Amino acid sequence: MNRIEYSRTITRWSMTEIRCVGPVEGNPFTDCWIRGIFTGKEESVTVEGFYDGDGIYCVRFMPSFEGTYSFLLQSNFSMQEYEGTFLVTKQEKNNHGLVRVHNTYHFAYEDGTPYYSIGTTCYVWELQSEEQIEQTLKVLSESAFNKIRFCIFPKHYAYNLGEPRDYPYEGTPMDSSVLTVENFNEYNGKAAGNDWDLYRFNPAYFRHIESCIVRLQELGIEADLILMHPYDRWGFSCMEAAANDHYLTYITARFSAYRNVWWSLANEYDLLTAKNLKDWEHYAELICQKDPYQHLRSIHNCIHFYDHTRPWITHCSIQRQDLYKTAELTNEWRERYKKPVVLDEIAYEGNIQYGWGNITAQEMVRRFWEAVCRGGYAGHGETFLNEKDILWWSHGSQLLGESHKRFRFLHDIMLEVPGTGLRRYERTAWDEVCAVPEEIGKGDSFFLFYYSFMQPSFREFDLPSEKEYEVFVLDTWNMTKECVGRKKGKFKVALPGKQYMAVMLKEV
Amino acid sequence: MNRIEYSRTITRWSMTEIRCVGPVEGNPFTDCWIRGIFTGKEESVTVEGFYDGDGIYCVRFMPSFEGTYSFLLQSNFSMQEYEGTFLVTKQEKNNHGLVRVHNTYHFAYEDGTPYYSIGTTCYVWELQSEEQIEQTLKVLSESAFNKIRFCIFPKHYAYNLGEPRDYPYEGTPMDSSVLTVENFNEYNGKAAGNDWDLYRFNPAYFRHIESCIVRLQELGIEADLILMHPYDRWGFSCMEAAANDHYLTYITARFSAYRNVWWSLANEYDLLTAKNLKDWEHYAELICQKDPYQHLRSIHNCIHFYDHTRPWITHCSIQRQDLYKTAELTNEWRERYKKPVVLDEIAYEGNIQYGWGNITAQEMVRRFWEAVCRGGYAGHGETFLNEKDILWWSHGSQLLGESHKRFRFLHDIMLEVPGTGLRRYERTAWDEVCAVPEEIGKGDSFFLFYYSFMQPSFREFDLPSEKEYEVFVLDTWNMTKECVGRKKGKFKVALPGKQYMAVMLKEV
Repeated sequence: MNRIEYSRTITRWSMTEIRCVGPVEGNPFTDCWIRGIFTGKEESVTVEGFYDGDGIYCVRFMPSFEGTYSFLLQSNFSMQEYEGTFLVTKQEKNNHGLVRVHNTYHFAYEDGTPYYSIGTTCYVWELQSEEQIEQTLKVLSESAFNKIRFCIFPKHYAYNLGEPRDYPYEGTPMDSSVLTVENFNEYNGKAAGNDWDLYRFNPAYFRHIESCIVRLQELGIEADLILMHPYDRWGFSCMEAAANDHYLTYITARFSAYRNVWWSLANEYDLLTAKNLKDWEHYAELICQKDPYQHLRSIHNCIHFYDHTRPWITHCSIQRQDLYKTAELTNEWRERYKKPVVLDEIAYEGNIQYGWGNITAQEMVRRFWEAVCRGGYAGHGETFLNEKDILWWSHGSQLLGESHKRFRFLHDIMLEVPGTGLRRYERTAWDEVCAVPEEIGKGDSFFLFYYSFMQPSFREFDLPSEKEYEVFVLDTWNMTKECVGRKKGKFKVALPGKQYMAVMLKEV
Repeated sequence: MNRIEYSRTITRWSMTEIRCVGPVEGNPFTDCWIRGIFTGKEESVTVEGFYDGDGIYCVRFMPSFEGTYSFLLQSNFSMQEYEGTFLVTKQEKNNHGLVRVHNTYHFAYEDGTPYYSIGTTCYVWELQSEEQIEQTLKVLSESAFNKIRFCIFPKHYAYNLGEPRDYPYEGTPMDSSVLTVENFNEYNGKAAGNDWDLYRFNPAYFRHIESCIVRLQELGIEADLILMHPYDRWGFSCMEAAANDHYLTYITARFSAYRNVWWSLANEYDLLTAKNLKDWEHYAELICQKDPYQHLRSIHNCIHFYDHTRPWITHCSIQRQDLYKTAELTNEWRERYKKPVVLDEIAYEGNIQYGWGNITAQEMVRRFWEAVCRGGYAGHGETFLNEKDILWWSHGSQLLGESHKRFRFLHDIMLEVPGTGLRRYERTAWDEVCAVPEEIGKGDSFFLFYYSFMQPSFREFDLPSEKEYEVFVLDTWNMTKECVGRKKGKFKVALPGKQYMAVMLKEV
């Protein structure tokens, strides 16, 4: 037994790693394994390590508690085990731990702080140029977004025909100069000309993604990692079973210790025709088994919902099924699945040719409010045509739309909700959405009435006469919040007769 | 037998009447009957007459054919029968006959001219002051509306607390000075203070309505008469069975000979709690039996659709059931009922407190296009608050909105459709509505693609390469129609990246 000196300061809910030298011959990715067992007063966690290239083996850990931890390193390439101890101190400011499901339908960080998801989608922002990546991070830092969905594998799709900055495996890609706007659809799945060793990762590729995850973490943004997707010309969407397991094992070993990681098994899983339900359940099982921290897990549909009642699914990651009714179904999905409902795709603000990418900013913001007032969460994306064909939805870079400017206002209103999160009030009138706090006992202390596309000049209220409420008129588009006095019982609130208005009542 | 000299010029599809003197004693409405049998070369029609007050009995007839007709008058108050002959000449210009169902899902006038319904609702416009009535007729004359829904009985409802200009029965109404905005809902159905003889009509009331029907006829507007409705404080919504039959018999005797009459058995029949399904079927049977011309017949819902498959129902008169999806369901209702679908209430443009009366003009126009491109028809209404509380939806008078200005453009586009009417193209993409002509064999000669709330910058088309099409870009809101050239096979059409656009393709 050998002792390792381990002198770094380790704080709660932060990633720490131990790097060891090991063999380079053969295929270290398949031949060698290393693992660590980390034991504190309140937890003992076994984590698998991974090969990081250049003869370096790495074991990562994220402590969930403060105090002294001991660790033990084991591998199949060293006759010796290594051990050591380290001290975990209080989490850093702004580190609230992992996001967990809270009160069935909502989320909170591990320290209890509510997490109100305001997501966006930039499928392969991390695979663009350094300049674009920095631009994306700058835009994110100035935004209200606290979750971003993106893919581990590169993306091949309309507006996505270029080469990614790098590849996840050793090998060579097909020659993409043959691709045109007209023919790209003929190159699906594993196209001729690709030559990959699916058992030898390119560690630099994953290190880069990790650097992006860390940058997001610094901005307080959750990284909703899409592990598999169908937009593919390299064959990564239709690897053999062993290669898929190999990939997922590597991904979980590398990424699990980052607190802001969420696992999205797939985007549009139902378009991955090479995989069946058994495959997905197998991947889910593997991730459940390999991720010691049990990060949030979901799987995103194109047409058909996955059965979100499956126990491994922590929350519904939903793409709207209807062109017209999107966030308006949030409460029904909550009831059906009894889990948080996150509408990760409700169409994107933009003007491209596809119906999923050409709604107005007003409609996007409206869908967010419909979702929130029904006790769920929505996701943003942008698909505006531009000279360089750089679209936020895939490439990040710049926001050209108007909806993103309205989400901080919404988030600020959510922060006023007593307890954690909203639910649709059961006595909502047919021509409004009324939200009340999810938390039992807080139900009549706060009301949020949303009028969506309607434009009433006034509304009438009939509330318990024993309570007094401060009444606020909210313009969800122009982001104004006006207190119009205190009321109780039956009363009337004047409104400006335009769309996207809300009335918030707070018990005095 | 006595001969009557009958020298008036009678044209096809116009109302003619024979007025006779009869008894005034007793109750002429119940004690006396008169009927006419009109016989031409191609039809023999028996019509019931009615008592028009002041000892005058009246028999009305509308000939459906040209040529010589003979008639025979019979009554229970004269020992003698009367007979005569008259000549029916060709219909007057702009008289196309009654509107009938055409090709299962559409309408055409009796002479074969397509009738594309552009409806509006002014529930009791005809019961307002002369000045308002004239104003309404002027507005209608300048509009694209070719159907108006209104009630025979006066209306008691929010914004409808005043007295009507007159009453349908002899008697006295309750004192309406007790009514307030707060308490009016307590006066439902037969309120105390009403004193009516439900077996003695006030003929002046009905003569006035007839004069309104005639004025509409002159404007080419169909009168969609609502025979019963629940917005009542006088008791007309809950009369005893015999009184209802008496009323419907009188109505059909008086109104049937006006070619532009449609029968709407009820508005929001399901709110008329004093009546059950058997009652409605009985009324329907009575109308079918009493109306010799078989005018169009419907019944309008609040929440629950009537079973529109019932044989007496000529077309579905629908109130949307969902706050969000309205005209988007038109094609589903067509398939379900196999009849024309008329969306008589899809919410009204306005700004009142109720969700059914506060949508934007854009949304109203969008719902019209959604309905039309799915092979149906929509109805308009307006509910804008104003100082005098005169709302188009009930009182007519003035239009304050913006949607009504856009219907002629839509109607003009409908007139370009080969054959009669549109249906949703079965290969419509998920993110558009594509309409083709209903008429078999004309299916690929005309396409109308509508993009609704989406804002594509371009769309791609893939059409039969053996046909050439003239391509038009339509801005349904700004009412522009631009020809952008001739195309065949696969092509792309540039669009301005804004909402409410359509593309029309016409075979060259």
